[in-house]
Amino acid sequence: MTITIALDIGGTHMRVAAFPESEKKPTFHKRIRTYTNGETSIDRLINLILEAIPPGERVDAVGIAVPGPVDPEKGIILTAPNLPEWEGVPIPQRIESEIGAPAFLGNDANLAALGEWRYGAGRGHHDLLYFTISTGIGGGVISNDRLLLGAHGLAAELGHVTILPDGPLCGCGQRGHLEALASGTGIAAYVAEQLASGRSSSLIGKPETKDISQAAKNGDELANEAFQRAGHYLGLGVANYLMIFNPSIVIFGGGVTQVGDLLFDPMRETLNKSVLSKHYLQGLVITTAELGDNTGLYGALALARDSILSNPKL
Amino acid sequence: MTITIALDIGGTHMRVAAFPESEKKPTFHKRIRTYTNGETSIDRLINLILEAIPPGERVDAVGIAVPGPVDPEKGIILTAPNLPEWEGVPIPQRIESEIGAPAFLGNDANLAALGEWRYGAGRGHHDLLYFTISTGIGGGVISNDRLLLGAHGLAAELGHVTILPDGPLCGCGQRGHLEALASGTGIAAYVAEQLASGRSSSLIGKPETKDISQAAKNGDELANEAFQRAGHYLGLGVANYLMIFNPSIVIFGGGVTQVGDLLFDPMRETLNKSVLSKHYLQGLVITTAELGDNTGLYGALALARDSILSNPKL
Repeated sequence: MTITIALDIGGTHMRVAAFPESEKKPTFHKRIRTYTNGETSIDRLINLILEAIPPGERVDAVGIAVPGPVDPEKGIILTAPNLPEWEGVPIPQRIESEIGAPAFLGNDANLAALGEWRYGAGRGHHDLLYFTISTGIGGGVISNDRLLLGAHGLAAELGHVTILPDGPLCGCGQRGHLEALASGTGIAAYVAEQLASGRSSSLIGKPETKDISQAAKNGDELANEAFQRAGHYLGLGVANYLMIFNPSIVIFGGGVTQVGDLLFDPMRETLNKSVLSKHYLQGLVITTAELGDNTGLYGALALARDSILSNPKL
Repeated sequence: MTITIALDIGGTHMRVAAFPESEKKPTFHKRIRTYTNGETSIDRLINLILEAIPPGERVDAVGIAVPGPVDPEKGIILTAPNLPEWEGVPIPQRIESEIGAPAFLGNDANLAALGEWRYGAGRGHHDLLYFTISTGIGGGVISNDRLLLGAHGLAAELGHVTILPDGPLCGCGQRGHLEALASGTGIAAYVAEQLASGRSSSLIGKPETKDISQAAKNGDELANEAFQRAGHYLGLGVANYLMIFNPSIVIFGGGVTQVGDLLFDPMRETLNKSVLSKHYLQGLVITTAELGDNTGLYGALALARDSILSNPKL
């Protein structure tokens, strides 16, 4: 039996799964801390892959979702604030020399889009947008049955577009990005700023997104306004992307989307008012990710399987 | 000899050209008014095609660039303010029954991108953005060697994205779109509004874009500011598109771009400050269209040739 190895790497944890050929259910699945004393995280990655391979089995490919932009030709992570020791390191070559199978890197938000398209909520669609809304906003696009990568693999930075010129500061250093307006960090920054300016609320200091969500459900006016505002800007952003990509499905993942209608009601309201014509909304599916925490892992699986299909010599 | 017929249809003129197989130089080229007394514009289109076919030649396909969004599956124009009698009419079927060759419709801005990619400034690139800036702003995208169309052919409305929430009114009825900020109409509207509010300038009343351009070259402060402002917002918009598509080339066409650095200097200044990382600018070509008024015609040619290649039964 041939197996495919998929990994999802984060700044705190890394996960591996082993999938028998053509199967969607893994035979092995493990999650470990990315960093520990005494071992480099790249060594830990290699050992984790070795542990996932059943004795005597052949590995056809390894797919890896990483938290940063990837140069797909060189197989390196360009920048990874959470994984500084991985930046610029040719991880696939290292894996290939240790495991004897080809390895492929992809940006985790892009691969989440690929995973949801192949194995999750986006099955059967040809044009798909995926947004992950947590501390930041990431995205991935399937256009005409292919993952959008761009000339150097840097496309689909859907959170880093200017929605409000001179708006609030984004984690990237620019102002008014969708991420600065509608991510968990953006929502929390808005509430903190309003509290600091003397707004009355059941919240105090610098509350986290989950506290703001709870306060909103308890009727706190500022907390509700914070989600209303984030949803409004998210709707403006999504409307832009409908005009740009004309997708048939938009999928939302990430922790912040668990607040549900608190964010999605104002998003839909702005979206419906902001499209160029009703044609963009006809038959459009707006939904949440099906694969939960496994979107990146399934995207890595799809990447590995696609890569060996498109490189039959491997 | 087999020939391909290409047409570019506008609200005031329509043009036809006949291209021998595999050739880029037409053997016939004619431009007529779209409307006249006594004939419908669709009848004029059919007669123009018939006139373009040399006696005894076989036509393999007809490609048509039209000024409005197209449903590529149904082969109809969805909305065309300048060609109301074409809306919803199955033009390709009519042509096929009269000419005996398959016909294919495409949105003119999309086809301009296709034309510049195949025959113009974008040759050899795999990821290309094309903007046409005239009274409006249209666009087209080549992503991974394919024209971006979306689920219903409505993608790449690059001028109709919100850049400045609650900004100036766009021709489409929305506010703050790139088109409302950086098109000729947007520039003229800004100057007219500033003049109405009492700004001093060599311009008076409601000047046209070409007068504003002339005034700017003569040192008029308001006129210069108008292009500075348009270029700034264009730079914000293009920066967004770099993060979304990561192209290797951006091509500008359309009458307003003839003002040159008056628009492009502030655009580049904002663009350089607004990208997420320097990687987006590495090796990026920013240039103007090579095919001039013929971009749509060459796009229609490329559409016709591609369509018969991908439908070998034809």
